[in-house]
Amino acid sequence: MNIWNGAGRHIHMQEVGTRDGLQAETAFVATEDKIALVNALSQAGMAKIEVTAFVSPKVIPALSDADAVLRGIERRPGVVYSALVPNVRGAERAIEAGADELNLVMSASETHNLANLRMTRSQSFSALSEVAGIAREAGVATNISLSCTFGCPMEGDVPEATVLDWCDAFVGSIGARGITLCDTTGMAYPGQVALLTRKFRERWPDTELTLHFHNTRGMGLANVLAAIDGGADRFDASLGGIGGCPYAPGATGNVCTEEIVHSLELMGYDTGVDLGSLIDASKRLPALIGHDIPSQIVKAGRRLDLHGLPGDFEAIRQRAHSR
Amino acid sequence: MNIWNGAGRHIHMQEVGTRDGLQAETAFVATEDKIALVNALSQAGMAKIEVTAFVSPKVIPALSDADAVLRGIERRPGVVYSALVPNVRGAERAIEAGADELNLVMSASETHNLANLRMTRSQSFSALSEVAGIAREAGVATNISLSCTFGCPMEGDVPEATVLDWCDAFVGSIGARGITLCDTTGMAYPGQVALLTRKFRERWPDTELTLHFHNTRGMGLANVLAAIDGGADRFDASLGGIGGCPYAPGATGNVCTEEIVHSLELMGYDTGVDLGSLIDASKRLPALIGHDIPSQIVKAGRRLDLHGLPGDFEAIRQRAHSR
Repeated sequence: MNIWNGAGRHIHMQEVGTRDGLQAETAFVATEDKIALVNALSQAGMAKIEVTAFVSPKVIPALSDADAVLRGIERRPGVVYSALVPNVRGAERAIEAGADELNLVMSASETHNLANLRMTRSQSFSALSEVAGIAREAGVATNISLSCTFGCPMEGDVPEATVLDWCDAFVGSIGARGITLCDTTGMAYPGQVALLTRKFRERWPDTELTLHFHNTRGMGLANVLAAIDGGADRFDASLGGIGGCPYAPGATGNVCTEEIVHSLELMGYDTGVDLGSLIDASKRLPALIGHDIPSQIVKAGRRLDLHGLPGDFEAIRQRAHSR
Repeated sequence: MNIWNGAGRHIHMQEVGTRDGLQAETAFVATEDKIALVNALSQAGMAKIEVTAFVSPKVIPALSDADAVLRGIERRPGVVYSALVPNVRGAERAIEAGADELNLVMSASETHNLANLRMTRSQSFSALSEVAGIAREAGVATNISLSCTFGCPMEGDVPEATVLDWCDAFVGSIGARGITLCDTTGMAYPGQVALLTRKFRERWPDTELTLHFHNTRGMGLANVLAAIDGGADRFDASLGGIGGCPYAPGATGNVCTEEIVHSLELMGYDTGVDLGSLIDASKRLPALIGHDIPSQIVKAGRRLDLHGLPGDFEAIRQRAHSR
């Protein structure tokens, strides 16, 4: 396969902006606006949408309306509606509200897991197992997002073997349908991504593998392509590129959905996503969150969104030709 | 070759920020600051630096000190000091001030050439030939930058055959040492880049080929990698990512030197550039140009620039372990 030419290969695009993006915002986006956003993303053709998170409203007030949002959206057949849940209570709420999939989170880095989740990794793993049991009983699929798989902002490199050992536990002990390898703070680089992806795919060909990149150091798209080269076909991305990095104020967050779709479609990959609808949805974001968005496609337009001639072009042309 | 693993392959990094970047700024950067910037870039290990442009001070006042800058810099052996020249007068000034190389510009798009240079392409080609003759007599190398090789913001796609025909004329009739394929407004995409680069390299293996990308639509690094895969080993980039896009206010301009070097070095390519020195130089830019710079590396730091533990980390850890 030539990685620069998709030749129609299908790539599943998964939206995380309504969860990973909005949770980082100080503005509370009205429930009806969140619902409209999810509906627009469904209509645009996203394969999966992480609609919200069932977390404590005290910890993340921006997503305190998780129940209402998940119950309020229009379900488009074929789209998987996922919700992040941190614990049993969250799982019960998410299942009751109709989540198709629960997304559970822990970190590949002990330090990051402690700092972020206030548990050791093995405590987190036990908690995840319990939550996964509840999902299994309810017939709801489980995905596990493993943070810091490409590096920890406090520890540095995380050994590949550590990442693969945790994945082994998720597939073997927990029976997760899917695993997301998360580049939580933008430390992944293409060489590393291609190798880890290939090892994962060879070892667990039947597990749904998602790659979750942040564009913090400008390597987002290159990492997506390296992952595709390693056998991946599912990517998280965030509308407008919203979702910052707590470790780097001002840095961009998740890779931008419309940028990735724009690039992949130009290269002949089939994302199943209507780019125009996506851009329309993204353009609504600044008014909702109260600030500009990183999206380069919203700023610059699509590659072939052409510009008019200068007003004096005909005069210039005639002057040139009369020389 | 595995594109994700450079395996020590050498990539020549060429700085254009002091010309392509500064010419777009409204602030006039003091001559001594420009000189210090070029000297810092020399010391960092850039292979070539487009120091300035010998253009009319009325048209580009930001570079009105071209003579003083080019005469004032310290020459580091091995670094090529290039200058953009639009005409015979500019060429004479640049040669007199000691330019190692003249960079001449025309566009692959008739519309863009007329709008930008107020000449037909064939008029531009005649003018370029005359300037190249002066350079040849003076024993100074000539590079020709062909704008809009990957698309024109007014015409749209530019046929590959058109681009290759102009390159043929540059190599055959003008005898240019080098050609730069410029993605003037960020329309290039990796599939296109890999193909065009390979065709160029196969046809003119002895001509110095540079790729000049803008990150306007987020494809800068991916395009660099696609070009390497097609056989390229020279790239223009701009310190801090300065240099906007006149067709897309707010959009980023040239690919950012420190982002490209950071990525390529992580992937095992040898750029010969000291990243720390580059970042130090880039950090001076906001004070010089009066605004923030796009550089994600200045914002977020290098991949392994680690962050400290939270202040209450030890308490968290002990609490977790006591459970």
